[in-house]
Amino acid sequence: MTKIEIGARTFLYPMPVTLVGADVGGKPNYLAVAYCCCVQEKPAMVAVSLTGSHYTNIGIKENGTFSVNIPSEDMAEATDFCGIFSGKRSDKSRLFVTFYGNLETAPMIYECPINLECRLAQALDLGGGEELFIGEIAGAYTEERFLTRGLPDIKKMNPFVFSMHDNTYWKIGEYLGKAFSIGKQWGGP
Amino acid sequence: MTKIEIGARTFLYPMPVTLVGADVGGKPNYLAVAYCCCVQEKPAMVAVSLTGSHYTNIGIKENGTFSVNIPSEDMAEATDFCGIFSGKRSDKSRLFVTFYGNLETAPMIYECPINLECRLAQALDLGGGEELFIGEIAGAYTEERFLTRGLPDIKKMNPFVFSMHDNTYWKIGEYLGKAFSIGKQWGGP
Repeated sequence: MTKIEIGARTFLYPMPVTLVGADVGGKPNYLAVAYCCCVQEKPAMVAVSLTGSHYTNIGIKENGTFSVNIPSEDMAEATDFCGIFSGKRSDKSRLFVTFYGNLETAPMIYECPINLECRLAQALDLGGGEELFIGEIAGAYTEERFLTRGLPDIKKMNPFVFSMHDNTYWKIGEYLGKAFSIGKQWGGP
Repeated sequence: MTKIEIGARTFLYPMPVTLVGADVGGKPNYLAVAYCCCVQEKPAMVAVSLTGSHYTNIGIKENGTFSVNIPSEDMAEATDFCGIFSGKRSDKSRLFVTFYGNLETAPMIYECPINLECRLAQALDLGGGEELFIGEIAGAYTEERFLTRGLPDIKKMNPFVFSMHDNTYWKIGEYLGKAFSIGKQWGGP
């Protein structure tokens, strides 16, 4: 046994890089968030976890809406900026072109290849300072140029990922294989 | 405006690739899960969302424990196998070497470079067939060879990611930059 225990910390690799958007006091604000994942297929839901002290939380509760935007690798600096400075003191809406969808109060970032517009379904206090916001996805937006056969194409969008604790960003690399397919070579059940 | 609406689906890119472990009827079972993220720093917590019909859910509720294991890219086929076949009919424990930590009932995969041992904190019915399990991380395990300066090193572990809907797996690519740092070139608040 060469396994070692390295402490009860958030050692999950990699984490996604998202920009969570909310109107705060009627003005768009964006926060870089790695604690984000989809949680349900239908109705489609996404969860984001934000420290309770964040400026964004106020807006999410105010409007009952938020957005999850996926930045591309050429937006890494602007994204990182949104993880360093709080909307309390910094007008981060100046970094991007904002647009709105059907919900009207969930600001989305035009430059991001994917935007998920969300209706708040549940907010959960996790007890250690973080709030988990679960949103129903009301709409998803992209541009034609990011699609291949009608679906978002990861190699056209160029999202990137985050390695926590050593705090580094990484590009998406080579194709590895087809899901729900390459495992069949191990035989049936 | 060249944005188009592509439907309210789980268009989040990329998703992580994890193997969620639970003892079911006293026997280890592993399920490939992409709906997974960390949700709190301290106490460290992770959330996984599983369709209610999964075999794994029974074990998580039975024991109040589960594990999140991060496979490396050379485990892609075995991981994919765990996403295709249910533990109801397939003994997936035969694919890996299982070990246990302090919680004693959360089976972990020796071959995975990272293992998170979790105590169930909350289970949430999301209303559309999925259950969200929020676990407090009780311990994290790795091997010395995956560390650099005491922290897990993504380039030594080689986790991989999942692109949903077109169902493809991708490797981690090149280094893009330092988090909480490259954004400073945009100036202060």
